[in-house]
Amino acid sequence: MIDLRPINAILGILIAILGTMMLVPAIVDLVSGDPDWLVFVVSAGVTVFVGSSLWLAGRQEEPAVLSVRQAFLLTALSWIVLSGFGALPFMWSAPDLNFARAYFETVSGLTTTGASVISDLDTMPPGILLWRSLLQWYGGIGIIVFAIAVLPMLQIGGMQLFRTESSDKSEKFLPRIGQIANRIIVVYVTLTVTCAVLYAITGMDLFDAVNHAMTTISTGGFSTHDGSFGHFANRTAEYIAVVFMIAGSLPMVLLVRAFAGDFHKLWVNPEVRLFLAIIAVFTVASTLQQRAFHLNYGEESFRLALFNVTSLITTTGFAAVDYAPWGALSDALYFLVMFLGGCTGSTTGGLKMFRLLVLASAVRQHLRRVIYPNGVFPIRFGATPVTDDVAASVMSFLFFYIASFFAVGLIINMMGFDLRTSFSAAVAAVANVGPGLGPLIGPAGTYGPMNDTAIWLLSFAMLVGRLEIFTVFVLFLPQFWRP
Amino acid sequence: MIDLRPINAILGILIAILGTMMLVPAIVDLVSGDPDWLVFVVSAGVTVFVGSSLWLAGRQEEPAVLSVRQAFLLTALSWIVLSGFGALPFMWSAPDLNFARAYFETVSGLTTTGASVISDLDTMPPGILLWRSLLQWYGGIGIIVFAIAVLPMLQIGGMQLFRTESSDKSEKFLPRIGQIANRIIVVYVTLTVTCAVLYAITGMDLFDAVNHAMTTISTGGFSTHDGSFGHFANRTAEYIAVVFMIAGSLPMVLLVRAFAGDFHKLWVNPEVRLFLAIIAVFTVASTLQQRAFHLNYGEESFRLALFNVTSLITTTGFAAVDYAPWGALSDALYFLVMFLGGCTGSTTGGLKMFRLLVLASAVRQHLRRVIYPNGVFPIRFGATPVTDDVAASVMSFLFFYIASFFAVGLIINMMGFDLRTSFSAAVAAVANVGPGLGPLIGPAGTYGPMNDTAIWLLSFAMLVGRLEIFTVFVLFLPQFWRP
Repeated sequence: MIDLRPINAILGILIAILGTMMLVPAIVDLVSGDPDWLVFVVSAGVTVFVGSSLWLAGRQEEPAVLSVRQAFLLTALSWIVLSGFGALPFMWSAPDLNFARAYFETVSGLTTTGASVISDLDTMPPGILLWRSLLQWYGGIGIIVFAIAVLPMLQIGGMQLFRTESSDKSEKFLPRIGQIANRIIVVYVTLTVTCAVLYAITGMDLFDAVNHAMTTISTGGFSTHDGSFGHFANRTAEYIAVVFMIAGSLPMVLLVRAFAGDFHKLWVNPEVRLFLAIIAVFTVASTLQQRAFHLNYGEESFRLALFNVTSLITTTGFAAVDYAPWGALSDALYFLVMFLGGCTGSTTGGLKMFRLLVLASAVRQHLRRVIYPNGVFPIRFGATPVTDDVAASVMSFLFFYIASFFAVGLIINMMGFDLRTSFSAAVAAVANVGPGLGPLIGPAGTYGPMNDTAIWLLSFAMLVGRLEIFTVFVLFLPQFWRP
Repeated sequence: MIDLRPINAILGILIAILGTMMLVPAIVDLVSGDPDWLVFVVSAGVTVFVGSSLWLAGRQEEPAVLSVRQAFLLTALSWIVLSGFGALPFMWSAPDLNFARAYFETVSGLTTTGASVISDLDTMPPGILLWRSLLQWYGGIGIIVFAIAVLPMLQIGGMQLFRTESSDKSEKFLPRIGQIANRIIVVYVTLTVTCAVLYAITGMDLFDAVNHAMTTISTGGFSTHDGSFGHFANRTAEYIAVVFMIAGSLPMVLLVRAFAGDFHKLWVNPEVRLFLAIIAVFTVASTLQQRAFHLNYGEESFRLALFNVTSLITTTGFAAVDYAPWGALSDALYFLVMFLGGCTGSTTGGLKMFRLLVLASAVRQHLRRVIYPNGVFPIRFGATPVTDDVAASVMSFLFFYIASFFAVGLIINMMGFDLRTSFSAAVAAVANVGPGLGPLIGPAGTYGPMNDTAIWLLSFAMLVGRLEIFTVFVLFLPQFWRP
């Protein structure tokens, strides 16, 4: 059997941190005189108690050592279990959700998806709004640390490509995670504070500025208003959001280097270059499309294109304007952009740039081999040749990614939702974007009217997408549990 | 440069055969007193003349020998050029189509797709209806011969798995093709005649029986009536159609063996077993769905499920009833079934069963490797281990297949068609099925109202799908044309 002690210890710490964070909305609600402060205090008490107990039960004298299976289990359990505790305030306070919906909202937060079942955000007390933003902010830093420290050792989805000295031996796992995490947290906090200050300068009130800064940098997309970013009708803030959504989509390790003065590595990185190029191309395409179909002109067409393309490809899901009225024009573009995602080791979901690069290289290589059956053509990521193992991992990831998307869309479609709603919900969940297409779940709607089965399915889809798919599916294999 | 002479010789013969076939509708129109007989005679004259000239220009003293590049070029040119000549009657006779539409209708015929731009079939003279059926019948036998004799030597989409002694040396290509083709044609004709006789026994008139027999066995799906198979409201004929659509979707080489008394090989074939299992599972699912949503009951629900599932998975595209009224219920199921296709070496399009088996094995193997990083798990097709090369080919095929589907859907969507219409048109074309979803291009509509750009794009998509994708894309690589 798998030794659960080190898993319990780490999970306990993560739960206790989540519980402690609940005191922030408690204070805000107390200051603003909202009775929900008590809900947060009670939730914090329960959560910290369980977290501490788990930690006590699991901690060992010698520094913990994780096997590959333990790392799988820890990764999956972190998101699954923390979402249970994070859901408590949603059930007991103003939104008054049932467990399915409260869990959905929390998963959507911790996976930085941004899909919501809560309507009437404008009438909600500040504590619960802040809690949603905090969940995304915590989930954002969480996925970065996992992507850098844990996923490369799991050899899934091609992530083994990012194995470094610090991650190639599982025995060194725990001490290293602390070193990496510290530097990343500094950059993450600095970016958040900068973003909040800039938002505030453009005229947002402080509460909105802080909340949106947290959900911008984590590419989460929760807002404090039903109108999302469109509520502010603030052009400058929209351009600022574009900059920080992009920052949240870059490889965090390279941002850390850039903060230390080394911008070169960031600039020459093939993922970063492809990512910026794709944003540029789609922005131009969408701008031209708006003009060709007489929807918007001038700066507005450019800004809407840039904001929506960035918001979707970074899997943030902010809406400056409901893109639904674009109708048939942008539907397929929406799917394409959402599928792609950002860079590795960022808070974005989706396929990610490095997989796109490996895939493109594999495809080129294959076409060449069709013509020269005996030639040898290595698959590359940028200039680096990539082993067959990594290429196969990436191909398998693509397969599972598309299969998950299709299975979720199929089931929702069979429940009676139309094709556009079903499959946009599926991609919005698996790619961790948030809003879908159509009147129901588009930027102007919420997932609230969906039935509990669909809600559970989408919660599962968000987790599967966030955990790079294999981390979840591997747990369903009998071999995983065999000694 | 590539020596065009052997290509010209074979292409010339194929064109001359097509031209000769035009005399059949000419005779039918002459007998029924329709003036269009002249159109067919003139088209036949032009076509046979060009075909014979090409053959004369290309033929050589010694038996022709094809290189891999010549085989690629021949395969692609066969469908592209023959569609041009086959289009002549559509432009000059009753349907009076422009070239884009006439070419579309012919491509749809020769690729056994079954998408049509012609409405009011019931008022058309018999010659043109027979011509459509003949195109599918000729295209059906053509793709079987190519799939067995040519594609395995091209190492594309995993088809190299089906390389036999007769196809492993390109030098032996031409003499062998004759031997294989002869036996296949006997079986193909026998099946067609049997199907026509059975249709006639159920009460179809002879003309309808012969036409539908040709488009059933070729899994093409053209009908002589706007109501497609629903026109006859003939239950027995629908069950007969199911049997012969399935026959047309089995590996023809194994059908040839079965005709010689060896049913065992057919029965134990993993492709055949998976194919029948999928039909059974989807039929049960769709039957239950109709009952659960109070659409149909009893034998009718089963028959409609069986007929529609078979019609779509075999990429035939007959409609016993417009499946559009099922609405959201069956949309996603429709996409899934169409994507899969039938068995290798049959007239079906789509992904095909053997690729599904290799993919499933590759996925299982990958999941095992995630758990046991140092284990060795071979990828299999049935019981046979498959080389990495084949697995990579299949993965690449899947990638290009989905990318082609998505690109076509994206462009049509950006032209202003809704998501459901655009992507069902894309999959119906790439998988060579025919009818899409929705009021416009569903079984009750035609592609007629689409603009010429969309029509050209869909013609291209049908060719790409029919020629197993790579055969077309390889021609666009500069390396292909380099000496």
